[in-house]
Amino acid sequence: MSVTTTEESLATRIEEALRHRFSERSAAAERYGNEFVGLWRAAEEHALGGKLIRPRLLLDLTHALAPAPLTADETRTAIDVAAHVELLHFAFLLHDDVIDGDLMRRRRPNLIGALVAEHAARPTEAALHWARSSAILLGDLLLSSAVLGFARADVMPEARDRLLGLLEQTIFETVAGEHADVALSDGIIAPDLRTILSTSAYKTSTYSFVLPLRAAAVLADSSTATEEYLAMIGLHLGLAYQLQDDLLSVFGDPEEHGKDPFSDLREGKETAIIAYARMTSQWDDIELHFGRPDLSPTDGAAARDRLRECGSETFVRGLVQEHLDATDAALLEAEADGLPPAAGQVLRTLASRVGSRSR
Amino acid sequence: MSVTTTEESLATRIEEALRHRFSERSAAAERYGNEFVGLWRAAEEHALGGKLIRPRLLLDLTHALAPAPLTADETRTAIDVAAHVELLHFAFLLHDDVIDGDLMRRRRPNLIGALVAEHAARPTEAALHWARSSAILLGDLLLSSAVLGFARADVMPEARDRLLGLLEQTIFETVAGEHADVALSDGIIAPDLRTILSTSAYKTSTYSFVLPLRAAAVLADSSTATEEYLAMIGLHLGLAYQLQDDLLSVFGDPEEHGKDPFSDLREGKETAIIAYARMTSQWDDIELHFGRPDLSPTDGAAARDRLRECGSETFVRGLVQEHLDATDAALLEAEADGLPPAAGQVLRTLASRVGSRSR
Repeated sequence: MSVTTTEESLATRIEEALRHRFSERSAAAERYGNEFVGLWRAAEEHALGGKLIRPRLLLDLTHALAPAPLTADETRTAIDVAAHVELLHFAFLLHDDVIDGDLMRRRRPNLIGALVAEHAARPTEAALHWARSSAILLGDLLLSSAVLGFARADVMPEARDRLLGLLEQTIFETVAGEHADVALSDGIIAPDLRTILSTSAYKTSTYSFVLPLRAAAVLADSSTATEEYLAMIGLHLGLAYQLQDDLLSVFGDPEEHGKDPFSDLREGKETAIIAYARMTSQWDDIELHFGRPDLSPTDGAAARDRLRECGSETFVRGLVQEHLDATDAALLEAEADGLPPAAGQVLRTLASRVGSRSR
Repeated sequence: MSVTTTEESLATRIEEALRHRFSERSAAAERYGNEFVGLWRAAEEHALGGKLIRPRLLLDLTHALAPAPLTADETRTAIDVAAHVELLHFAFLLHDDVIDGDLMRRRRPNLIGALVAEHAARPTEAALHWARSSAILLGDLLLSSAVLGFARADVMPEARDRLLGLLEQTIFETVAGEHADVALSDGIIAPDLRTILSTSAYKTSTYSFVLPLRAAAVLADSSTATEEYLAMIGLHLGLAYQLQDDLLSVFGDPEEHGKDPFSDLREGKETAIIAYARMTSQWDDIELHFGRPDLSPTDGAAARDRLRECGSETFVRGLVQEHLDATDAALLEAEADGLPPAAGQVLRTLASRVGSRSR
């Protein structure tokens, strides 16, 4: 995908802001011993180098929504808020990985996996305890940094209150979604389609899509009506994104999406694909292979074929399309209600990337 | 210990503020399902009913430091900040219990233990996973609530910046201390006396003593010089408190302090008592019993006697006295430099409680 020079330079400035934050914290960590410095260095290594989807979206949209070109100060403030959205994302990932017991992310060791590897000479249990405890504590630091970053944003008091209210609701809803996700995986609540979809909306759409979109509205001083349209668009885009991700994991080309094929099936991940399949007569066949850590490639392929035959793939592709259509409808309404065309453009580009993405 | 009517009524108002916060959150949780509401109800039950030492200290000292009686608004603000200090404390306790694998606190099930008991019909591993994941997530919510509470304190911008800077440093240092504590218990760093003492200062003194004292100085608009004296006093009092706690656990009367006798020895907790004993010739005898989950009362009593004979008890009692003396010296200096006599009184009462406490 091609990006303009402005996008490139904004991405660089977000990365610089994050790097500056991490090196300042690593320096502050020095008086607390080598292990604490090491934790911050590991944090920097794992938090950077990503695609910065959320902060870039926030920045692009702030520019597109603003009635006049942003001043240098306003740009700096937007970059700062965007960087703290990325810190929030990383905090959530860390605690998510602790809860899920994951040691890898995108075929590479995550921070926990890296800390375990560093202490490979110790008994596995002790190395895991050290790595997971470190991830809990680092997540705490990044979560509080994100809130502090929003609290200190260089904006007028009213905008600050809006940002803080938005962040509070985001954290509350994301944690509610994560809690429901744990309840699903521990078998505490039933994995029906409605629960799966709302859990996914709370856990992913809210902070990955709704937060950057609404924060941009606040920073560009948009009306609350525009902010509400953006909230709705973010919700639909987030659901489309997550459902597309589920489809790719099961039916996509592992060479392209870079994940372990069948890993969702092996883990017994409760997705919309599975929730639909449960309601069909093919479920008994599929269930034999669902949540089996030792699932062979042959059985994985067989389960995938059953999921296709029972209509799950078609059904979930339909859901993706519904949410993209809903995005489109909300965009037209928002534009009729004063959303600047440049903002419509940013969101349509995003929607088309979500619809066509292969990884 | 006797308390005045004013103290009683302030404690009641802190508890009301906390109760209000929890019931507002329980109500907001309703749209996310019964499990999430249940988590907030459990949070309320476990967070309330404590002695509210930190918020009461903050309030008492704010009153004592203020040059004029606090207005109703100022009192409300101080109660609000104090309540958020208590939420921070509970967030730290939750993550601490996850990290330490604890299911009990003060001979009662903690929040994790209570959630495990609720799901006793499930396999132990699943019930533990659910309970610990819930505690991680609730801790995240309370930690971010605490920061948001400070960010929204109804004070002038300069005081708000001071409060946020104080909170940021407090969280950073407390997490650094907790991280070092994990490094000690996982054998990543050596348990020498200096490390034990600094870890204890970072992990406990900073948020339990220094934070309430310094926050009071900010709320009462005291000079930065006074705030610095209070930081020093909080550090010494916190260390005296923690060392006294270590002494009580090993040498105190279990009927009075309410803890499992020998639990520190069973867990192999690295305290100043143990760090001193390691440097003596009796250590070989003591080590036989140290960190043994199956330690019998007879062997526990024998280990305790060795710890007394090797000079550990005397040494640590001496340390407690040193920190109380340092508190006294700092108080005299602060008073010569303008600390109001009423504030000196509050801190002397606290110091004498720390020095004489039996539980």
